[in-house]
Amino acid sequence: MKKIINDPNFVVKDMLEGFVAAYPNDVKLLPNTTVVVREDAPVSNKVGLVSGGGSGHEPAHAGYVGKGMLDAAVAGEVFTSPTPDQVLEAIKAVDSGEGVLLIIKNYTGDVMNFEMAAELAEAEGINVQQVVVNDDVAVEDSSFTTGRRGIAGTVFVHKIVGAKATQGASMEEVKAVAEKVVANVRSIGMALTPCIVPAAGKPSFELKDNEMEVGIGIHGEPGIKRTEVTTAHDIATELMEKVLDDMNLKSGDEVAVMINGLGATPEMELYIVNKEVNNILTEKGIKIYDTFVGEYMTSLEMAGCSVTLLKVDEELKSLLDAESKAPAFRR
Amino acid sequence: MKKIINDPNFVVKDMLEGFVAAYPNDVKLLPNTTVVVREDAPVSNKVGLVSGGGSGHEPAHAGYVGKGMLDAAVAGEVFTSPTPDQVLEAIKAVDSGEGVLLIIKNYTGDVMNFEMAAELAEAEGINVQQVVVNDDVAVEDSSFTTGRRGIAGTVFVHKIVGAKATQGASMEEVKAVAEKVVANVRSIGMALTPCIVPAAGKPSFELKDNEMEVGIGIHGEPGIKRTEVTTAHDIATELMEKVLDDMNLKSGDEVAVMINGLGATPEMELYIVNKEVNNILTEKGIKIYDTFVGEYMTSLEMAGCSVTLLKVDEELKSLLDAESKAPAFRR
Repeated sequence: MKKIINDPNFVVKDMLEGFVAAYPNDVKLLPNTTVVVREDAPVSNKVGLVSGGGSGHEPAHAGYVGKGMLDAAVAGEVFTSPTPDQVLEAIKAVDSGEGVLLIIKNYTGDVMNFEMAAELAEAEGINVQQVVVNDDVAVEDSSFTTGRRGIAGTVFVHKIVGAKATQGASMEEVKAVAEKVVANVRSIGMALTPCIVPAAGKPSFELKDNEMEVGIGIHGEPGIKRTEVTTAHDIATELMEKVLDDMNLKSGDEVAVMINGLGATPEMELYIVNKEVNNILTEKGIKIYDTFVGEYMTSLEMAGCSVTLLKVDEELKSLLDAESKAPAFRR
Repeated sequence: MKKIINDPNFVVKDMLEGFVAAYPNDVKLLPNTTVVVREDAPVSNKVGLVSGGGSGHEPAHAGYVGKGMLDAAVAGEVFTSPTPDQVLEAIKAVDSGEGVLLIIKNYTGDVMNFEMAAELAEAEGINVQQVVVNDDVAVEDSSFTTGRRGIAGTVFVHKIVGAKATQGASMEEVKAVAEKVVANVRSIGMALTPCIVPAAGKPSFELKDNEMEVGIGIHGEPGIKRTEVTTAHDIATELMEKVLDDMNLKSGDEVAVMINGLGATPEMELYIVNKEVNNILTEKGIKIYDTFVGEYMTSLEMAGCSVTLLKVDEELKSLLDAESKAPAFRR
């Protein structure tokens, strides 16, 4: 295992300290927790937004904390759900009296622990609502999930819901827009290589020298199939078929596109994938409203990418364009 | 070789097409060239700024084209200087009559080809000046370089000089601030793994299973030494010693920090390095004005990082803070 770390058992602690050290005017770490919150939390007259999940997906989730996006992100151990007590700390830190919306990626552990935290917070008189993101069209049910997994599309939920809450919308309105994004966002990923959880010290699965896996999850959960590595053209075509099959888009519809690197993919390759995705959409008459290329939801040093499409209307476009000061999503 | 590409001989073309497809309102590709320019080039009453170099360092250099930063970026083949005719096209496209400043990383091929382009442009009546960035303190002279190499510190040059030019400063003023940044910026890198140039299909050098190289260049040029992989603490300490030895900083001085991933390094590890760098600077009483963590100047899928310090004064701080709409450096 080649990693630039200190003790494998303290990577999350070290990472969070290094993260808040980078943006001391914008975010802070709640003492003795793994919760990163906005420096000015709780923000008055605003629904609080909390997300989080296992670590190893950086810049998710702390990178999306900031004005215009999340109020707090809760980090679990690598690829492990955060515990309910940590999520509860986040909820309490960001509630200004307007309630708190939890944005949860659909993994069994995350859903259970966030729900438990919601119950504890409600017992303390905080109005807590939740939305579960399940954008991955690859498979129904997988190693850690009942139903579809939540992957990179979650970042669009953070951005758009963050903008809505920043406008001072009510909990009902904020939750409605969150559900609208979830209903309109679809993703799928593929990997060329596995990744290594620091505390494990070895890859959690293996791919042969010329093998790739389509539909893989961001923790290496099984995908649809393994094949020889093909071309960017063929990979993009296959990923887009799966996504488009599930979206019922028609000519004239507008989408936002995210080409997300899983951690070790050169940005050059992401742009080559974007060329192919752009061609496919253009041929179908689907308009591209905006494109995001980079590392948004990673899997440590996994090589590969995911493609996300979000069908947008005037409301979603306006919220997507709104200002964001989150370190990993500046607008 | 596992890569998401089409033909290895067309990776630069495919990448540039995918890049401009992502930001059609902001940038365009000059027809039949490898030159990315601002959509609105040439910008009136503004010194034009052109940078570039070999491909494989994405988001450098096209990612820094945009309002507040560069006017054009010229892409060579992977790890290969762009040709003088391409640089000339960029110069001609961005000159509004105020002249054009070339920002060149110190590699023999780049310096030669950019200078040749400057001569050709001057023969056409364009005032062309240049600044050569040589921030890498690791070694004097290396595979492709006489003197010190230019690496991630170049991004600070793009940002600050871009802000100065955007203010409408004269060529003399713009060039002076460029030289000021070059005089005050220092970097050094280290790698855990090599990278693979697509057309070559195999690594240009090898590192053993538990070996790292300190002081390595962004094309894999030799560094200072190879050792067993140590801890993030020890790596940061060693990199910072080399940089600080060369900077003569004293307690109370202010710096901007860049922790740059070389392509395959998980962002988690970059933040762990930032924690260590932050501790070292804080112990010495050196103030951190701002911190940038991410992939700014990469080497395809090389795993490793570089650390850059820029000593800042009031002028540089103000220019660093100024608005930028470049896709890879939004402020």
